[in-house]
Amino acid sequence: MPPSADRSPFRHTLRVYWEDTDAGGVVFYANYLRFFERARTEWLRSFGHSQQRLREETGAIFVVAETSIRYLRPARLDDELDVTVELLEAGRATMLIAQQALRGDVLLAEGKIRIGCVDAATLRPRRIPLTLPSGHLPLPA
Amino acid sequence: MPPSADRSPFRHTLRVYWEDTDAGGVVFYANYLRFFERARTEWLRSFGHSQQRLREETGAIFVVAETSIRYLRPARLDDELDVTVELLEAGRATMLIAQQALRGDVLLAEGKIRIGCVDAATLRPRRIPLTLPSGHLPLPA
Amino acid sequence: MPPSADRSPFRHTLRVYWEDTDAGGVVFYANYLRFFERARTEWLRSFGHSQQRLREETGAIFVVAETSIRYLRPARLDDELDVTVELLEAGRATMLIAQQALRGDVLLAEGKIRIGCVDAATLRPRRIPLTLPSGHLPLPA
Amino acid sequence: MPPSADRSPFRHTLRVYWEDTDAGGVVFYANYLRFFERARTEWLRSFGHSQQRLREETGAIFVVAETSIRYLRPARLDDELDVTVELLEAGRATMLIAQQALRGDVLLAEGKIRIGCVDAATLRPRRIPLTLPSGHLPLPA
Repeated sequence: MPPSADRSPFRHTLRVYWEDTDAGGVVFYANYLRFFERARTEWLRSFGHSQQRLREETGAIFVVAETSIRYLRPARLDDELDVTVELLEAGRATMLIAQQALRGDVLLAEGKIRIGCVDAATLRPRRIPLTLPSGHLPLPA
Repeated sequence: MPPSADRSPFRHTLRVYWEDTDAGGVVFYANYLRFFERARTEWLRSFGHSQQRLREETGAIFVVAETSIRYLRPARLDDELDVTVELLEAGRATMLIAQQALRGDVLLAEGKIRIGCVDAATLRPRRIPLTLPSGHLPLPA
Repeated sequence: MPPSADRSPFRHTLRVYWEDTDAGGVVFYANYLRFFERARTEWLRSFGHSQQRLREETGAIFVVAETSIRYLRPARLDDELDVTVELLEAGRATMLIAQQALRGDVLLAEGKIRIGCVDAATLRPRRIPLTLPSGHLPLPA
Repeated sequence: MPPSADRSPFRHTLRVYWEDTDAGGVVFYANYLRFFERARTEWLRSFGHSQQRLREETGAIFVVAETSIRYLRPARLDDELDVTVELLEAGRATMLIAQQALRGDVLLAEGKIRIGCVDAATLRPRRIPLTLPSGHLPLPA
């Protein structure tokens, strides 16, 4: 991938609601996976891709194959969070994506998500049926 | 329906985990709908009915058409709750079910749930393709 | 409350993500309670009220006392929904709110939510410590 | 830690309900974090430890600091899953735990969870205020 000093990661803004919190008074850690996924969905949409339409037209759905997340600082009710999406690697049937959740400049959680593309009916791996802008989807060598 | 003084409602026991709570320190109210559904699923299972198999064999799924719930007292982390299921009415394509969530003798939440049976592919109403014990499924007059 | 023919209900727009759906291929019905609450939270915010700050400054939190919801049509992944909020009644310690979820002009779910105000520490009822615009919060007679 | 060929990991059994699934027809991957946590909670309970009581008596709560999970095979509605808990490392304020979700002999998901102990009021790290059986809580050298 060529250097691209000016390419800042995609950013999706969301709000913390009651549903997201737990009895510790903070966002329940499992919910960062939901936040990360909302951001990935909006990132795809920013290239014109709707997953519902993708499924109807090609039979393909994305599935999460692997997640590793570090939880650094708590978020609370009413916080406004930014969630970033950065494509690290892209292959024929998988993508590796780095994501962060921030409140202003404060990093709350970050991680990497490996996504696979499968056939919705058989759940077998298949080629990703979409084109991301070339800066975002480096072809494997 | 004939009198049946000895028929106590079906009862499913569950535990409150972190995932069920919110920043108020208590069970998030929307989660009682999840608790009620777990109990209905186990109630069907107590008659030998699995919804996954029902769908595979008949194409039918149950959908919730209406819920009215009163939240009376809070439940907390680690509480053990009993959730009851009582069939109030049963028609060709719908059921009306009364449910309660209790901690010991203390009533925490209660409500009525109207369930419809639909075809999984079309989501159109269809006849309920199963037989509940006659004491539990009064035929409509 | 004075007549106000021009007062349309508050409206919050949200997107359906994977997390909101179930194996029926549609939005899991319990999640409309989450959608409705997001809209109520944004409705309060539109008057300048943050629930987190309200709690820190006054010790008050809102709790849901009663919900009755009708589920009319399914929503699907990627749908954009509008959720409305309309204050029907307001007393010293409770509010009754009507809400709808729509996709364009199509009504998907609607219901009424009774909210109580309690002290966060004791969970006992207390007076609502905020002022909504008079058109929205009729004082009890 | 002395060899203990007979020590099989703790095992918690749970059922997949509608609430756990997504529009892919399978368990939503983020929900394995909920399943894993239920199992950890029951594992602590098997030693006589309730997190609610721990908090009331000592002010301590456990928080998740890091998770890395691999999703291997899908689970479906009505599946019965076993979730295991194995303590890999234990320090003064943290634990590292390995977990698996299985359907019969089939491994569906597995991962490692790093848990920290914090003060509920300040969210600052503190010593774990409980004793696990020595076979389960190796003291740091």
